[in-house]
Amino acid sequence: MTMPSSLLHPDAFLSPLAIDEAVTRALDEDLGRAGDVTSIATIPEATTASAVMIARQAGRIAGLPLAVATLQRLAPAIRIDAHARDGSEVAAGQKLLTISGPARAVLSGERTALNFVGRLSGVATLTADYVKRTEGSKARICCTRKTTPGLRALEKYAVRCGGGFNHRFGLDDAILIKDNHIAVAGGVRAVLQRARGHAGHLVKIEIEVDTLDQLRDVLDTGLADVVMLDNMDIAMLQQAVEIASGRVVLEASGGVTLNSIAAIAQTGVDYISSGALTHSAANFDVAIDIDA
Amino acid sequence: MTMPSSLLHPDAFLSPLAIDEAVTRALDEDLGRAGDVTSIATIPEATTASAVMIARQAGRIAGLPLAVATLQRLAPAIRIDAHARDGSEVAAGQKLLTISGPARAVLSGERTALNFVGRLSGVATLTADYVKRTEGSKARICCTRKTTPGLRALEKYAVRCGGGFNHRFGLDDAILIKDNHIAVAGGVRAVLQRARGHAGHLVKIEIEVDTLDQLRDVLDTGLADVVMLDNMDIAMLQQAVEIASGRVVLEASGGVTLNSIAAIAQTGVDYISSGALTHSAANFDVAIDIDA
Amino acid sequence: MTMPSSLLHPDAFLSPLAIDEAVTRALDEDLGRAGDVTSIATIPEATTASAVMIARQAGRIAGLPLAVATLQRLAPAIRIDAHARDGSEVAAGQKLLTISGPARAVLSGERTALNFVGRLSGVATLTADYVKRTEGSKARICCTRKTTPGLRALEKYAVRCGGGFNHRFGLDDAILIKDNHIAVAGGVRAVLQRARGHAGHLVKIEIEVDTLDQLRDVLDTGLADVVMLDNMDIAMLQQAVEIASGRVVLEASGGVTLNSIAAIAQTGVDYISSGALTHSAANFDVAIDIDA
Amino acid sequence: MTMPSSLLHPDAFLSPLAIDEAVTRALDEDLGRAGDVTSIATIPEATTASAVMIARQAGRIAGLPLAVATLQRLAPAIRIDAHARDGSEVAAGQKLLTISGPARAVLSGERTALNFVGRLSGVATLTADYVKRTEGSKARICCTRKTTPGLRALEKYAVRCGGGFNHRFGLDDAILIKDNHIAVAGGVRAVLQRARGHAGHLVKIEIEVDTLDQLRDVLDTGLADVVMLDNMDIAMLQQAVEIASGRVVLEASGGVTLNSIAAIAQTGVDYISSGALTHSAANFDVAIDIDA
Amino acid sequence: MTMPSSLLHPDAFLSPLAIDEAVTRALDEDLGRAGDVTSIATIPEATTASAVMIARQAGRIAGLPLAVATLQRLAPAIRIDAHARDGSEVAAGQKLLTISGPARAVLSGERTALNFVGRLSGVATLTADYVKRTEGSKARICCTRKTTPGLRALEKYAVRCGGGFNHRFGLDDAILIKDNHIAVAGGVRAVLQRARGHAGHLVKIEIEVDTLDQLRDVLDTGLADVVMLDNMDIAMLQQAVEIASGRVVLEASGGVTLNSIAAIAQTGVDYISSGALTHSAANFDVAIDIDA
Amino acid sequence: MTMPSSLLHPDAFLSPLAIDEAVTRALDEDLGRAGDVTSIATIPEATTASAVMIARQAGRIAGLPLAVATLQRLAPAIRIDAHARDGSEVAAGQKLLTISGPARAVLSGERTALNFVGRLSGVATLTADYVKRTEGSKARICCTRKTTPGLRALEKYAVRCGGGFNHRFGLDDAILIKDNHIAVAGGVRAVLQRARGHAGHLVKIEIEVDTLDQLRDVLDTGLADVVMLDNMDIAMLQQAVEIASGRVVLEASGGVTLNSIAAIAQTGVDYISSGALTHSAANFDVAIDIDA
Repeated sequence: MTMPSSLLHPDAFLSPLAIDEAVTRALDEDLGRAGDVTSIATIPEATTASAVMIARQAGRIAGLPLAVATLQRLAPAIRIDAHARDGSEVAAGQKLLTISGPARAVLSGERTALNFVGRLSGVATLTADYVKRTEGSKARICCTRKTTPGLRALEKYAVRCGGGFNHRFGLDDAILIKDNHIAVAGGVRAVLQRARGHAGHLVKIEIEVDTLDQLRDVLDTGLADVVMLDNMDIAMLQQAVEIASGRVVLEASGGVTLNSIAAIAQTGVDYISSGALTHSAANFDVAIDIDA
Repeated sequence: MTMPSSLLHPDAFLSPLAIDEAVTRALDEDLGRAGDVTSIATIPEATTASAVMIARQAGRIAGLPLAVATLQRLAPAIRIDAHARDGSEVAAGQKLLTISGPARAVLSGERTALNFVGRLSGVATLTADYVKRTEGSKARICCTRKTTPGLRALEKYAVRCGGGFNHRFGLDDAILIKDNHIAVAGGVRAVLQRARGHAGHLVKIEIEVDTLDQLRDVLDTGLADVVMLDNMDIAMLQQAVEIASGRVVLEASGGVTLNSIAAIAQTGVDYISSGALTHSAANFDVAIDIDA
Repeated sequence: MTMPSSLLHPDAFLSPLAIDEAVTRALDEDLGRAGDVTSIATIPEATTASAVMIARQAGRIAGLPLAVATLQRLAPAIRIDAHARDGSEVAAGQKLLTISGPARAVLSGERTALNFVGRLSGVATLTADYVKRTEGSKARICCTRKTTPGLRALEKYAVRCGGGFNHRFGLDDAILIKDNHIAVAGGVRAVLQRARGHAGHLVKIEIEVDTLDQLRDVLDTGLADVVMLDNMDIAMLQQAVEIASGRVVLEASGGVTLNSIAAIAQTGVDYISSGALTHSAANFDVAIDIDA
Repeated sequence: MTMPSSLLHPDAFLSPLAIDEAVTRALDEDLGRAGDVTSIATIPEATTASAVMIARQAGRIAGLPLAVATLQRLAPAIRIDAHARDGSEVAAGQKLLTISGPARAVLSGERTALNFVGRLSGVATLTADYVKRTEGSKARICCTRKTTPGLRALEKYAVRCGGGFNHRFGLDDAILIKDNHIAVAGGVRAVLQRARGHAGHLVKIEIEVDTLDQLRDVLDTGLADVVMLDNMDIAMLQQAVEIASGRVVLEASGGVTLNSIAAIAQTGVDYISSGALTHSAANFDVAIDIDA
Repeated sequence: MTMPSSLLHPDAFLSPLAIDEAVTRALDEDLGRAGDVTSIATIPEATTASAVMIARQAGRIAGLPLAVATLQRLAPAIRIDAHARDGSEVAAGQKLLTISGPARAVLSGERTALNFVGRLSGVATLTADYVKRTEGSKARICCTRKTTPGLRALEKYAVRCGGGFNHRFGLDDAILIKDNHIAVAGGVRAVLQRARGHAGHLVKIEIEVDTLDQLRDVLDTGLADVVMLDNMDIAMLQQAVEIASGRVVLEASGGVTLNSIAAIAQTGVDYISSGALTHSAANFDVAIDIDA
Repeated sequence: MTMPSSLLHPDAFLSPLAIDEAVTRALDEDLGRAGDVTSIATIPEATTASAVMIARQAGRIAGLPLAVATLQRLAPAIRIDAHARDGSEVAAGQKLLTISGPARAVLSGERTALNFVGRLSGVATLTADYVKRTEGSKARICCTRKTTPGLRALEKYAVRCGGGFNHRFGLDDAILIKDNHIAVAGGVRAVLQRARGHAGHLVKIEIEVDTLDQLRDVLDTGLADVVMLDNMDIAMLQQAVEIASGRVVLEASGGVTLNSIAAIAQTGVDYISSGALTHSAANFDVAIDIDA
């Protein structure tokens, strides 16, 4: 039997608890109270089916463990063979899974399985596109907290499947100081001192700056781990890299598109973050062909 | 106090239970175990803030009740005044909400509130764009089951906010017969008879056809309520409309884009369905400007 | 191992998710915090038992998958052989399940397993009684939304096991217009037009009428799929059937008893609905005989 | 605002947590994903309605707090005045609640509110009928664990509203030794000694006997708090009462009907238990009349 | 495969539902959204590990089923052999479990598994210490409701593993009358009569007394099953035992320590209750040695 | 009305969602299915009570918001005035809360409210004791992941109330490399390079060392943020501080007791971590005195 966890990206994490919960929730909203009335009405209980899940476009795959778990939840004895795993780069037309089992279960689980793979491979594929355009630079691509409500762990996992890195998973796993925090605390030094005073030794501190002067102020304090360069143009980013000269990690944010990303990466920043990876990735085109 | 439900679209439904659950889930994944460490470290408990939620693009709004519920969950006494409600058509720069209350709560809830409005207004805005292009025809735009796993009720609600209609909410609320069902049952007449025999009197039956001959077969039976015309070009759709001549409801599916939709609508079909409304809508650009 | 799903009625649906949830909830309320203190105190851990579940009355069975899932939740390796499945017509004294495994688990699960089979077979048996009395007519028996709170999916499934059909599963899967809706909207035509304007193409519309004049008004609009004839006597039902003459589906409602149902069916209505199927069915007499 | 808890029976318990959970679960299954499509389609958002909940039969009321909580969950500002509370004896036609608020909320919550009151008042009314027939005796009526799966706390509460007493709430709150436990342990004395050895000082021990000899054996041990006299006829029950002569509490079980109960009570037993109170009570006839 | 339930104390209860829920909750709070980032970063997916769980102190074991369930939740095919079970008395250095499987799963589950065994064996060991000091007396040691919020079922189970008995599991499974209840009801006789009038036949009644006069008053009524002697010194306890002379069960409460318990037990009381068993037990020292 | 959140420590976080969930779970396990049968039996519904929560020992308070939320869950209109908040240093005998409301609710909620304050103030008080002994040094006290399963967020919050800092909240919010990770990866440099390669820019890396040579190896790589000095004696810790001379943050771990902590702090390490803070803190002595 194919274990869903065996199809996870080898170096990215998705909890078995999160898989179970996501699959239960998704099936529950699709089956409703009366279930797949079409299949029950038209497909005899004993009918079996063979099926293949096929990528209809090239790209980077994510979500197969969720697809497998979906089908197994409906038919524990269903047989599934995998021809790819999360993180695989695939061509259009490539088989991802071969499935055989009760026809009703295959038909009932089809849409939910595809919705997982379509959404998450969409995120992974867009991430991989960004990553490819930064090749030759040291810049790493990362996501933000602009994720679909309720799907953060899944979408952050998909970013890793695409070769990206993860920014904060939530408000709680690092300090990120923005303009309002600076204003209330009374300036860059004051806010960083308060943050250092409060934070434990395993909490990193990032601060957002809009100007090069602010960057210099931050560097003077020696209290920040990471500086977010917010909405700076290429020239300004280059200057920032020179000014920082390795004393902090630099993250470029804002105005990141498939067109602009290569130039941003060439400035020498360490990280480039983009909300679009998770909030505006198009669905990946994937289908299940069934031979009932 | 602004009740979240008072900002719902007046003629679309979203359960108070679903709002509570979505907000709890989203806040839980953002606050994590340690909460908004940045605000706790840098903003004194007693600091208050004023803020405005502003549309940064023109479009159709959905999700305000979820944004309000998010902020109220963090600070029950927060004051929120609404300048729009779900279903409102807004211009870029328009104020949506005015907010005042504890600065920590405003900052902690900001991202989650925006993620709801950004995602759902994205769906509503794309739907409204589709709807506008069909003006002058009788065609109605509708969504599919290609929704983000776990967000179906919210996304289907957003489609209504955009002026669209809803296809099935799940496998259980109508019969939709596809090629596999036809094949197993042994043809169009056989499958429709089985479906009619099984279904109660409040369940509609739709059947998908690829060819005009199939359409004629279906019409001959008199047993279908709706026929889905799958991936037919404009000429074929026109013929289908003529052949059906009002005997069944016709739904065009496949190949629906902002470019093609007007022509499809002009063929005279009753419904045009598109998965892109929910699976590939770009995020709506919305922000909260805070004056702490 | 007997899979619970293999004992489901072959043509009725009950989600594996719903089975798991119902069993967990029922066991949780019976085991409480301290469990089956009697068996722990008096039965050694290693004692095994054989048992048979036996129908103590004739009738129609429903709920066996829940009984099996209950026992397996307590003892995954318990052995269960089935001699009937949901939808089976059984005689008094007939064996339903043969069970062997840890005595404590059998004793601890006995009551919960029986409560499922007793309640659901009660519904199925009453439904089957109604159905039998309508033989020779075209009338179908259906349930209502008058179900035990929290058990709707299970009870509607039991109705199908009894040979009945399902009315709406909830407020959301069809439009059912009653007197208040008509009054607010300003009459039969107005309310039906509003309903048609709002509803998508996969939503059926039913309207309740008290008089034959109302029925004629509805028929004149041509906008209803189903008409509910509320509390009409036999003569009036006959007239209604003549007036409608096949233009809409007719559902008789109100005053339905084991005594009246045959006469109602003979009037020629299409459906007869009864809340008693789910809200007042007596428990089915079933027991587990244990040989510890 | 009427608090649901203020309508609880003054001397019976139902947790506010249990009320919230039951109401959420019941509304969730009725509203589904798309909600009350009929009311949204036909009733304008601003329409208000007055309504009265009326008992259509005489009996004992239970479930009003759940009805109130249901309506308040849909419309927090709804106005409800109560004319009865749980445990009230009412006549046919008596008003229970007066309701005024948003018409959509009243219509959407109507069925769920009635299902709670109908089911629980059905149990309370049947219990009260049993209790009345035992007047003049010392016998108390009590329920069993033969309850609707998932509703035990609610149904046991309804039994108290009817004037009955509660047997065990679950397997964990007393020891009840049956034939299998006796057989495995090797006789009445052995099983009672094991039970006493295991049980703490706040756990009562009941043992079921089929014969008067068994009763004598139990009495000889002096180890049981309660003896269940299983399926004994009137004469045998009388002998049992004489034999026990107050040394243990006696519970008559089996063959309890509205016809037999008075005679059983006259034998002098202390408790009479009946599964029918919860598993076979007919629904109480109750309605909401709405003036939209 | 080692089933968690096979490691339960043979005569104490812990529900499989409670095990599942506790393990899911504990893993969820430890894995968070991003999981064991250390192991994913540094241990290749295919690496396997052997490990042993070892007691680092002498004592009484409880919690092994939860440790096993934790590891199996992360790696269903992990191999675990048990060298002890709950209730075992172990020496320092004794192996409890031998584990082999994926290194990542072993490392990820290590802390959660240990937290269960450490906490529950701490309770069991302290209980066993108390029990040992009462040897030679008839006194039984029991816990109270002073448990860690959310862990009551687990901690009460651990008390049994230590050889103790359980007092009430909650407010609902016995009547325990304290000074406030007596004061409101108007004295000992009045309160006991109200309690007897309300309680069913399977509910025991305990009453707390501070003085010997109160004890005499209680005995005079003949209405209490158990009397709690609150904060009495040894001399007073001895007198209480004499006064009661077997007519009720006596429970000593207050001032119970490892030093005082033997003397209390020698007074002849039946039960000695102590909150410290659950609220102040030190963690049991246990470790997992891994050979990756 | 006292809002629970207003009693939180001003600079420590506990989510309103976590408070709601913890209170619901704790009340649910205490009320069970039948609730506070003692109070229902003996206290009339209308009786009111005044009460004070009093610290019976000196120490540091944590958990008041949970106590307040517990009582409000049972009686929303209960009146509570606070004389302390979380983080307050109190003397024995100090009033914490003054409460007045329905006597049944006060009595029913008493134990659960106390269990929260007792457990969390126990952790806070022990932490404060540790902190006091490090005064005059720069060392900060921090907790570990050795927390009670299911209570991590609450216990880590209590540590902050005691003046301590938090180590990782889970496996996911920092990298902590131990001996097994080093062994598998092939040494200190290799493991740190793998960790750096995998981790994003907001993830800190800590590595555990047993010897000063290992410490030097780590410092040579320049790749660690924090070094955990595991089980080193005072002399070795002093050397470690000299060797590191500010290049990394140093955390002392192992052998930390109330006796040893001052000396450890004097060595100049930055952090001292102790599992005992959360796994072995004794309960704080707190009571509610009720005047019913």
